[in-house]
Amino acid sequence: MNDIVLTGDRPTGPLHLGHYFGSLANRVELQGRYPMYVLVADYQVITDRDTPGEIRRNTTDLVLDYLAVGIDPARAVIFQHSAIPELNQLLLPFLSLVSVAELRRNPTVKDEIAHSSQRAVSGLMFTYPVHQAADILFCKGTLVPVGKDQLPHVEVTRLVARRFNERYGTVFPLPEAMMGEQPLLKGLDGGKMSKSRGNAIALSATEDETAALIRKARTDAERHITFDEERRPEVANLLTLAGLCLGRSPRELAGEIGDGGAATLKRVTTEAVNEFLRPIRKRRAELGEGDARRILAEGNERARERAVLTLEEVQQAMGLSASRS
Amino acid sequence: MNDIVLTGDRPTGPLHLGHYFGSLANRVELQGRYPMYVLVADYQVITDRDTPGEIRRNTTDLVLDYLAVGIDPARAVIFQHSAIPELNQLLLPFLSLVSVAELRRNPTVKDEIAHSSQRAVSGLMFTYPVHQAADILFCKGTLVPVGKDQLPHVEVTRLVARRFNERYGTVFPLPEAMMGEQPLLKGLDGGKMSKSRGNAIALSATEDETAALIRKARTDAERHITFDEERRPEVANLLTLAGLCLGRSPRELAGEIGDGGAATLKRVTTEAVNEFLRPIRKRRAELGEGDARRILAEGNERARERAVLTLEEVQQAMGLSASRS
Repeated sequence: MNDIVLTGDRPTGPLHLGHYFGSLANRVELQGRYPMYVLVADYQVITDRDTPGEIRRNTTDLVLDYLAVGIDPARAVIFQHSAIPELNQLLLPFLSLVSVAELRRNPTVKDEIAHSSQRAVSGLMFTYPVHQAADILFCKGTLVPVGKDQLPHVEVTRLVARRFNERYGTVFPLPEAMMGEQPLLKGLDGGKMSKSRGNAIALSATEDETAALIRKARTDAERHITFDEERRPEVANLLTLAGLCLGRSPRELAGEIGDGGAATLKRVTTEAVNEFLRPIRKRRAELGEGDARRILAEGNERARERAVLTLEEVQQAMGLSASRS
Repeated sequence: MNDIVLTGDRPTGPLHLGHYFGSLANRVELQGRYPMYVLVADYQVITDRDTPGEIRRNTTDLVLDYLAVGIDPARAVIFQHSAIPELNQLLLPFLSLVSVAELRRNPTVKDEIAHSSQRAVSGLMFTYPVHQAADILFCKGTLVPVGKDQLPHVEVTRLVARRFNERYGTVFPLPEAMMGEQPLLKGLDGGKMSKSRGNAIALSATEDETAALIRKARTDAERHITFDEERRPEVANLLTLAGLCLGRSPRELAGEIGDGGAATLKRVTTEAVNEFLRPIRKRRAELGEGDARRILAEGNERARERAVLTLEEVQQAMGLSASRS
C-alpha cells in the first residue's frame, strides 16, 4: 500500500520560524513524495480554551502561511476539521474501542490538562486522542510527522486501528509516527518559542518587526561569541536561528562573528532571517483572504469525498447500513 | 416557540408489549399534536456491547414495529443515527461544554456501566449523555418522553444547551422531559420485562407464541383470583396486561374471573392480548423490508436537512466558517 501523510495545525495564531524549521519545511519536502492531507484543526482550538476566538481570521492566516512557505494545494489537500462531518462521525465507533482508563493514562492529555486555561477538564480534552485517530484514519494516513510530545497520540491511533480491524475486518492501515531531526529553536528570550510569549518571529512579520524582536533578544555578558549550548543557550539559539536561515553551521558563524559581540550577532541574525523570509513574504503579499478561502473550499471538497468513502467502508464493516433514497 | 418531540430506541431486538404501553402508545398519540423525530439509535447499540450484532435486521424490524403500531411516517421523521453525520459532529462542540467530573457523576451512566457486558468502560459509554444531547438538540427537540432512569440524560442536555447559549448566543431551546404515567408491566416471570429473559410478548409474536408464553407465566397457589399487587404480583401483572389490552380495570377483571382461577386468567389474558395485537399483526404482515428501508431513506433525508441547518447555525454562532465551493 502507498503511504499517505497526515499533518496539520490548530488555527490559534500566526505560524513562526519555530513551526517552519520544526515542521513546515519538512512538509514542503514530503509533499513531493507522498499524497498529503493538511488539517486545519479548528475544533481543537476549543480543546484547551473556552471559545475559539478570532478563528475565522486565524484559519485564513494559517492557510496563507502554508501557501507562502510553499505548501502546494495541487499536491496537498488543505482542509478544515469542521467542514467534514463524516470524519467527525468516526468518533462514535472509535470511542467504543478505547476505555476510559486508557484515555486517563494518556501522557499528552495529562500534560495538556496541566497547561490548559480551563478550570475543569472537558469531555473534548479527555477524548482528544480519539479525535486525532479520526483525523489520521479518515484518509487512511500512514505517516504522521510529529514532535516527541505527540507520540502517545499516534499510539492511540494505532490502538484504535488495530482494534477496529480485529473486531470488524481490516479497514485501516496502522500509521507510523515520523519523528523530526530538527534542532529545537527556542524563543528569543530563551524560553519555549510561543506566539503568546512574544518571543517568536512570525512568518508574516515585517522586516522592521523582525529587527525589533531580534534587537530585544536576550544574550549574555561575554563579548566574544562562541557556540556553547550548555553554557550560553541564548547566544547559541541566535546562532542556530541564523544558521538555519543561511543553511550554515552555527559554530562556523560564531567563529566569523567572534569579537564582533552581541551587536554583530544580532545584525547577522536579523539579515539572515529577513533574507530568508523575503520570498515567503513576497508570496504572501500576492495572496489575499479570497485565495485562502478558495483553497480551503477545494480542499474541503476533496477531504470530504475521502471521508465519505471511509465512513461508508467503516459502517459496512460494522454492519450498519444507512438507508438512502 | 412550537414544541418538537424527540424519541427513539436502540435497535437491539423486537419491541414488546412493555414498550407498547410504556412508550409507543404515547408516541402515536403525540404525533397528532407535535412534529416528532423518532431516532433509530444504531450507534448506541455498541455503547454497552462490543459489536452491533444483527443490526441491519434489527433496524428493519424496529421500523416495521413502529409502522405496525401506527407511527405515521407522514407525521413522524423516523431516521438512523448513523445516517446523519451533521448530528454526530455536534458531539465536538458539546463535549467541550461538559467536564469529565460531570460525566463521571451521571447516575444513568453509572448504572449502564454496572449492567454492561463489557469488561472496561468505553469512551463511548462515558460520553453517552453528550451523544443524547446531540440527538435531542440537532432537531431543537423540546419534549423528550422518558422513563425515570433517563431523567439525568435530559438534565445533561439542558446543561449543554444552556452553556452553549451562554457562550455563543441563543441557538437551542432547553428541552423538557415528559414523564409517562403508564403502569410498569413486568415480565411473565415476575421479573423486569426483557426480550433477553424470554419473559416478554413481542409485538411481532404469533398467536401461538403468545399463547405459549402466557401459558408458562408464573402465577400462585391461590385459586380465587384477586388484584393485589403487593401480595400477588404475578397475578396482578397478568390482570394489568389483560386490562391494558381490553381498556378495562384489572380489579374489575379479577372480580369477573374469581373462582375461574389461573387457567381462566390465562385464557382471558391470551384472548385479550391476541385480540389487541390482531390489527398490529395485520398491518405488519402487509409490510416488508423494502417498506422499512424506504421509510428510513425518506426519514434520513428529512433529518439530515434539519441537522445541516442546525450545524450551520452552531458553527456560525461559534465563528467557525467552513469554506465551500
